[in-house]
Amino acid sequence: MDFSSFVTSLGTSFVIFLVLMILFAWVSARPGNAVVYYPNRILRGLDPWEGGSTTRNPFAWIREAASSTERDVITMSGVDTAVYFVFLSTALGILVLCGLILLPLLLPISATDHGLKFHSNSTTSNGTFSDLDKLSIGNIMDKSSRLWAFLIGVYFVSFVTYYLLWKAYNHASDLRANALMSPEVKPEQFAVLVRDIPPVPEGQTRKEQVDTYFKTIYPDTFYRSMLVTDNKEVNKIWGELENYKKKLARAEVVYALSKEKTGDRPTNRTGWLGLIGKKVDSIEYYNEKISELTKKLESEQKVTLREKQQSAALIFFTSRVSAAYASQSLHAQMVDKWTVIEAPEPRQLIWSNLKIKYFARETRQYIVYVIVGLTILFYMIPIAAISAFTTLKNLKKLLPFLKSVLSIKALTTVLEAYLPQLALIIFLALLPKLLLFLSKVEGIPSQSHIVRAASGKYFYFTVLNVFIGVTVGGTLFASLKTIENDPKKVVDLLATSLPGNATFFLTFVALKFFVGYGLELSRIVPLVIFHLKRKYLCKTEDEIKAAWAPGDLGFATRVPGDMLIFTIVLCYSVIAPLILPFGALYFCLGWLILRNQALKVYVPSFESYGKMWPHLFIRVLAAMILYQVTMFGYFGVKKFYYAPILIPLPIITLIYGFICHKKFYRAFHVTALEVVSRELKETPNMEQIFRSFIPPSLISEKLNDDDNFEDALSQVSRQGSFV
Amino acid sequence: MDFSSFVTSLGTSFVIFLVLMILFAWVSARPGNAVVYYPNRILRGLDPWEGGSTTRNPFAWIREAASSTERDVITMSGVDTAVYFVFLSTALGILVLCGLILLPLLLPISATDHGLKFHSNSTTSNGTFSDLDKLSIGNIMDKSSRLWAFLIGVYFVSFVTYYLLWKAYNHASDLRANALMSPEVKPEQFAVLVRDIPPVPEGQTRKEQVDTYFKTIYPDTFYRSMLVTDNKEVNKIWGELENYKKKLARAEVVYALSKEKTGDRPTNRTGWLGLIGKKVDSIEYYNEKISELTKKLESEQKVTLREKQQSAALIFFTSRVSAAYASQSLHAQMVDKWTVIEAPEPRQLIWSNLKIKYFARETRQYIVYVIVGLTILFYMIPIAAISAFTTLKNLKKLLPFLKSVLSIKALTTVLEAYLPQLALIIFLALLPKLLLFLSKVEGIPSQSHIVRAASGKYFYFTVLNVFIGVTVGGTLFASLKTIENDPKKVVDLLATSLPGNATFFLTFVALKFFVGYGLELSRIVPLVIFHLKRKYLCKTEDEIKAAWAPGDLGFATRVPGDMLIFTIVLCYSVIAPLILPFGALYFCLGWLILRNQALKVYVPSFESYGKMWPHLFIRVLAAMILYQVTMFGYFGVKKFYYAPILIPLPIITLIYGFICHKKFYRAFHVTALEVVSRELKETPNMEQIFRSFIPPSLISEKLNDDDNFEDALSQVSRQGSFV
Repeated sequence: MDFSSFVTSLGTSFVIFLVLMILFAWVSARPGNAVVYYPNRILRGLDPWEGGSTTRNPFAWIREAASSTERDVITMSGVDTAVYFVFLSTALGILVLCGLILLPLLLPISATDHGLKFHSNSTTSNGTFSDLDKLSIGNIMDKSSRLWAFLIGVYFVSFVTYYLLWKAYNHASDLRANALMSPEVKPEQFAVLVRDIPPVPEGQTRKEQVDTYFKTIYPDTFYRSMLVTDNKEVNKIWGELENYKKKLARAEVVYALSKEKTGDRPTNRTGWLGLIGKKVDSIEYYNEKISELTKKLESEQKVTLREKQQSAALIFFTSRVSAAYASQSLHAQMVDKWTVIEAPEPRQLIWSNLKIKYFARETRQYIVYVIVGLTILFYMIPIAAISAFTTLKNLKKLLPFLKSVLSIKALTTVLEAYLPQLALIIFLALLPKLLLFLSKVEGIPSQSHIVRAASGKYFYFTVLNVFIGVTVGGTLFASLKTIENDPKKVVDLLATSLPGNATFFLTFVALKFFVGYGLELSRIVPLVIFHLKRKYLCKTEDEIKAAWAPGDLGFATRVPGDMLIFTIVLCYSVIAPLILPFGALYFCLGWLILRNQALKVYVPSFESYGKMWPHLFIRVLAAMILYQVTMFGYFGVKKFYYAPILIPLPIITLIYGFICHKKFYRAFHVTALEVVSRELKETPNMEQIFRSFIPPSLISEKLNDDDNFEDALSQVSRQGSFV
Repeated sequence: MDFSSFVTSLGTSFVIFLVLMILFAWVSARPGNAVVYYPNRILRGLDPWEGGSTTRNPFAWIREAASSTERDVITMSGVDTAVYFVFLSTALGILVLCGLILLPLLLPISATDHGLKFHSNSTTSNGTFSDLDKLSIGNIMDKSSRLWAFLIGVYFVSFVTYYLLWKAYNHASDLRANALMSPEVKPEQFAVLVRDIPPVPEGQTRKEQVDTYFKTIYPDTFYRSMLVTDNKEVNKIWGELENYKKKLARAEVVYALSKEKTGDRPTNRTGWLGLIGKKVDSIEYYNEKISELTKKLESEQKVTLREKQQSAALIFFTSRVSAAYASQSLHAQMVDKWTVIEAPEPRQLIWSNLKIKYFARETRQYIVYVIVGLTILFYMIPIAAISAFTTLKNLKKLLPFLKSVLSIKALTTVLEAYLPQLALIIFLALLPKLLLFLSKVEGIPSQSHIVRAASGKYFYFTVLNVFIGVTVGGTLFASLKTIENDPKKVVDLLATSLPGNATFFLTFVALKFFVGYGLELSRIVPLVIFHLKRKYLCKTEDEIKAAWAPGDLGFATRVPGDMLIFTIVLCYSVIAPLILPFGALYFCLGWLILRNQALKVYVPSFESYGKMWPHLFIRVLAAMILYQVTMFGYFGVKKFYYAPILIPLPIITLIYGFICHKKFYRAFHVTALEVVSRELKETPNMEQIFRSFIPPSLISEKLNDDDNFEDALSQVSRQGSFV
């Protein structure tokens, strides 16, 4: 890519960004769009425009985002989001600090050498180096002592990263501790999740078994237990019931509207999708269905609570310290019995996974790892298969009627160029869903854990396939033979390919932040969808509310995306330091725009108290090691005799990671007792805590009738143990 | 080694064994020797000869050992010894079961082939094969389909081991659980050990800091804390004091004896070793010293308790469940602060190690690992150095006056043969001490843990150096060049060297059990030492008691010794099945004789509730993997095309080990709550539990005066928290 096309690409991206910004400033100020641009504030019952909408400055959001505190973020979007911002600001800090030192130091050193001219004379390439390439390490002569500056640069970048990462880990740890020690009563802090309960002994019910077991161990603080049941059937009935309730509400609105005009009662057909079958009066029909299903639900609830008890349970304690130490202790002599872990929030508990047994979970996990590993390694194969199928020749053969269409020259060219990419895009779009599904299959009990697991898988996928794939690209296949003979060559190959791709990745990063964050902020797609839905589909208030539901930040894909950028920028930080300001701009814009989105748009769907941080940390270290090994290879390729000076770096990174893991990790895995031993604001209402864990499909209409819960959910002696 | 020399060696060993047995039967029946042969019973206040000494059958001990139950072993020698017997009987079971199937199956198959004859014609060796070698796999022709039987044998041995090991792990786990749930009050079950206490905050004492911290977290069950102090100085004074007390007692006995004769008061000199200096009256002098040191001790005790407080403490709880979950939970947000672990028994607590900080411990551990690794790899170097120095030529050069002596031909030969071995023996004798020292340096807080750590190091040392060293021996050095080019060759080399050494190891095993266990049972050395000491050195009762103090079973060297035999027998089980009965005999005799020693002789010096088992288990698996890999190599050397059928075996072993580790290990690492939630026989006397942890050097003469302990040992509110 030459200089002019680089500028063109950069300019285009910037123009798109500007257009999107202006669009945002314009549409976000219209009150009708508030639900698209301020849903988080609206759902929390806050005024969308805090300062008053009349004198609204279109760029006020920047000031608001920049001046918002960490406390605001935690209040509006939870600790997980705050931890994510710790990552963003750490990445920004690393890149800014490195840029400030490396740019004025390395650019002049590169620009004043003649490596490229020298090389272009001697090699077969026809010298397409540009001004940009002259600013990279590629312009340094082989064996030049100028390489010392770059070598020191590698050390500098590493130590800056260590330092800021250490501070960030401390900060994240504090965030988690503060959230856990909060005086607010949080139901999940009073409960633990027990799995792998052994078979019920003769003459006892499951309930008695569980209650006796925990009452013996925690005579003072055990409150009550809730048996986990198989809710598949009851969930299905409840889902149908809710659906009919919605339909009824809709029919009533339609009827109310038609009263003014024709007065026709709405009708529908009872068959498939409402298209075939007998025509009935909707309101009557739905009312009938609802009362029928309500009865069915009630009887199914009873059956579920009585007969579908699983080998798992939630145990409630009257103190959060008790729940914390219970979740960390071994209860049974055999580890695969009475496994106790912290209870996740009620909303993110995956009930269907709870019954999976200890060794089944372990086995599933390793099988999933193998599948993901194979997917990462061989993801080219399905794409190649799709591409092969979708080449024009094959299409012509398989679908002869397309022949005449495909004879048009222009169309053919376009199709030929885009079909494989289309296949790739579809596959990449499906990947997060696949990874989330695979993570769920592992038997993980909480949604946040699934998201973390999927995000990890996706990170390794993108780094290996996008970054290394693009860099090494075609060269790899051509030289596969060489690699087989000597695996050390992989690093060399990567190192040689790096400088050539510097401009490509510069453009990539710029595209990502201009267009990606432009779309993110302007929310064009959700806006259009919302207006279309509201106009043509939605009738009731609930339907409209569902149409603007903003969703959460989507860490499963967002984090690996940022990580990919960080990895790329890190790896190029010394080779082509010009990438540093671009990377810094990415994280700066990202911080600003996501701050806005976190405060005003997205509604978190779970809270894991920052458990995501160690995963982010490990991935930054993985990127570091990739960077350090690549640089070692690169200096080797440059025939720099002192390249081995870089060998200690990956080892230092490993030791650094090990120390951090030892020092900080356990507090992220479990809850430290000193943290939860802080006093609460009020005496916890245990009944309310207990009820918050009952899934909606099991909540009876007659809430006060405790008989329904006696079987699976009741307590041993409410009078005695309730303190 | 040919057949006749094998029989000679076996015969000699057997004769030695018989002589030792007869000696034992004779001397152990004499009442004066009871303290050597029944010290454990005597120390527990039991009658040495339970059935009455008059009608004593010299072989009664066999009946007694064989009929003793596991309960007897636990009562007399603790759970650790019982777990050791689980290992011995499992090894015995494996070898007997394998022998019963493999011997009648494989011996005829070997004996009827002609591999050795064939080989001896074609190779340069002059055909020194014997009848013994004909019974090994060496006599099978290359590529013969008879090898199938041996291959199936490898699988059979492996699966027998898996099965019996699984049962043994279950059994060991039960033993531990039963011991931990015992209704007896054991002080260590009510305490936890806290290390890495952060610096004392302004305006608080260390004691207040610790008490407040734990009282907040465990308001109901916290009893009291005991600060760990630097006892170096006080221990020294106390040791001197005790020494003078002993000397005084001795002087008084001497005086009492001399009264009858001369009436001289005993005297001694005050200088170095009592050989120089002023001559004084012993009784007066010692009394003076004692009263002087008692005062010094008291003031030093005060100073220690007040000013030498360390960043560690023992915390006492009023319930053992509390202590159990406290020891398993993370207390501080940073893992390197307030580290809590189970308290070991008071007698095995290593006070001087408690103050070592978290990361210092980690670092020390890895440094020790590196040192041990290097020792294992390069232990030949110091020996070679000693040998080189001690060769005759060098001796002559360095010590010219020896020249005339060394000219004698016969002497030269003997010296030349034995000097290097002597060096090896001295080095090997020093090794366990070195390993125990290194393990202590790691910062481990309990004696039992140090023994386990040293035992592990010693195992890998013996297996790598004795077994592999002897087997591969000189060949390795000769072919070091080949190995450098292709590391796979190591296995091949080991495989080729194995059959040739079968007879050597057969003799080795036989020697070990005949002579080793003969000496063990007859206790000739302790007997002689005891009688010599009693006659020439001991004056007081205490001195005599010290002279027959039996010590403990010495797991640090005993376990690796047994493991080495097990590894050898396992590795030869299919190659030369004749080793199986020898191995079985080793473990059978071992079981019998050690049962006798455990019940009657050795006094355990600690109780770790079977924590040794997982270490034994891991080492059996290590032996298994060595066996399986070697066999794979051996079948390759035999050019057997189906050798790859053995590849799954090491993988199965790893998975098996992983599953066992997951299922059982944590219950050995910590205490399961359900186990300690059993009821106690009596309400624990917390004051007594607390006092049992005070080191003897800190126990004040005025035991009722609590003021001495107020500083470091007192409680916050004894009235309030004592339930």
